[in-house]
Amino acid sequence: MDFPLWIERITGGDLRLLARALSEIENRGPRKHSLLEALFPHMRKACTIGVTGAPGTGKSTVVDALAACFRKQDKRVAILAIDPTSPFTGGSILGDRIRMQSHEADDGVYIRSMATRGSLGGLAPAAADVLVALDAAGFEVILIETVGVGQAEVDVVQLASAVALLLNPSSGSDVQTMKAGIMEIADIFVINKADLAGTDRLESELRAMLSLAPETQEKEPPIVRTVATQGTGIEELAALLTTAPLAVERPADYWERRLIEMVRERLMDTVVEKALPAERLSEAAQQIAARRLNPFSFADELTRDLLSDSLLNRPKAD
Amino acid sequence: MDFPLWIERITGGDLRLLARALSEIENRGPRKHSLLEALFPHMRKACTIGVTGAPGTGKSTVVDALAACFRKQDKRVAILAIDPTSPFTGGSILGDRIRMQSHEADDGVYIRSMATRGSLGGLAPAAADVLVALDAAGFEVILIETVGVGQAEVDVVQLASAVALLLNPSSGSDVQTMKAGIMEIADIFVINKADLAGTDRLESELRAMLSLAPETQEKEPPIVRTVATQGTGIEELAALLTTAPLAVERPADYWERRLIEMVRERLMDTVVEKALPAERLSEAAQQIAARRLNPFSFADELTRDLLSDSLLNRPKAD
Repeated sequence: MDFPLWIERITGGDLRLLARALSEIENRGPRKHSLLEALFPHMRKACTIGVTGAPGTGKSTVVDALAACFRKQDKRVAILAIDPTSPFTGGSILGDRIRMQSHEADDGVYIRSMATRGSLGGLAPAAADVLVALDAAGFEVILIETVGVGQAEVDVVQLASAVALLLNPSSGSDVQTMKAGIMEIADIFVINKADLAGTDRLESELRAMLSLAPETQEKEPPIVRTVATQGTGIEELAALLTTAPLAVERPADYWERRLIEMVRERLMDTVVEKALPAERLSEAAQQIAARRLNPFSFADELTRDLLSDSLLNRPKAD
Repeated sequence: MDFPLWIERITGGDLRLLARALSEIENRGPRKHSLLEALFPHMRKACTIGVTGAPGTGKSTVVDALAACFRKQDKRVAILAIDPTSPFTGGSILGDRIRMQSHEADDGVYIRSMATRGSLGGLAPAAADVLVALDAAGFEVILIETVGVGQAEVDVVQLASAVALLLNPSSGSDVQTMKAGIMEIADIFVINKADLAGTDRLESELRAMLSLAPETQEKEPPIVRTVATQGTGIEELAALLTTAPLAVERPADYWERRLIEMVRERLMDTVVEKALPAERLSEAAQQIAARRLNPFSFADELTRDLLSDSLLNRPKAD
């Protein structure tokens, strides 16, 4: 199929061709950049929502309930499940497969898993590109769901314009054990399984913790109680996540970060491909390990060799 | 002080000048690269040990006990505490200060905290540079201790030639709640607080979990029981961490990764400084947010402009 027709079909809602494009983007195929370039003008400003929290807090259930809620509003919904797979946590994959079946009959819900752990460019830049494609494909709500709460996942959910952090009123997922860096990115705190004992205590602990936040933060994020298995609180959560302009970050700030990432990715692709191909890299590393080559001088020389003369001679900008 | 004298003093064991060099390296000061280049030939192959585990598992206590054990062997010990500080986890800083006092009288133990969270180059590359300086300064054992178990910390402890992962026989730090990616990097599992109930159960769970590991792994890592507060098991742990060649990675593999990181850092420094200074970046981002500029085409153009013609015209290496 020719390229313009491919783009036309994707933006028209063809899910099979969208899947092909997403694979091309995720696997950094040869047409990745042209696809993104062509899809960008078709973006319609989808509402992107990140859902994160420790394992067992009910992320999948909340995401499924939110998806059902948005479907009732006749919105097309995409779910992007982020799973930096570990050989020790194989369970989630099976879970995903089961979920896909439950939405199978509904053409308005599209589920995509990403597990590009260890890729050179990182998971978050790859996910950002996938979001461009999903938005251009006409999904009005994109739910980003993480499996864990590691740094990679934190980076990804921060791509969303609103982030919900799930907690449970049970030991093991209370505020004391929250990882550094995760509390700060939440726009909304969700106490899921709020029919369990300890919900009041968790909410007070959470409020106490939030009152310690630096004063730079504009206001305390809302706390919502849900019982996702019964749909309780989901409508309120959906409304909060989509109506208020929760994200402090302006779109221009987002694109500043992305531009730096994009240039970095392109530079490193070229470097790896042309200046430091496997054989040269391996030889240099062996020389360094044997102390016959100084890595710091070598990296300096290589960098000078890579950059254009006009750039190197350019005066430093202020 | 002139540069060669500075280097001479650092490699001769002057801790005050070492501290100045480490700050220059961590803060990416103007002499960072020349310092590292000059220190590299003085590296003496220090034994680097990573100690990680969930908060509360006793990492500081184990690291302190290990340090004391190596001091008895008359080895000079450096402790590098990695703390990607969060406003919500201020406690660890205080803890560090208290520890420093306990070692204060001993010139053979040097403690340094790193908290360069959010730096452009990432925490792990910065820590790798600090390790070069500590090694060149003559420390024979370098203990890398993380505060949490996030991706940034995992990346850092992987710089060590041996990694110990701490667990406790108490809820909240058992194998089920271990984060993806953390089990795989451990060369030794340490059940600390092994005088508590549940130690046998934890060890069997751990063995069961480890037997699920992919067959590519050479052999199951050892499990050591310690009660660090009493020094129990610490000598055995120290011996295991320093004698066996635990790390599968060869030094050349390490330098392959580091070279890529070093070139990336240098390229991005130049790019940010000369090609995409704040004002130009901000203007481009605003154009993109307003949909007047396609970020993917812009990044392509910029990359072509940055790289030397000779590189771009070079044929693709195979």
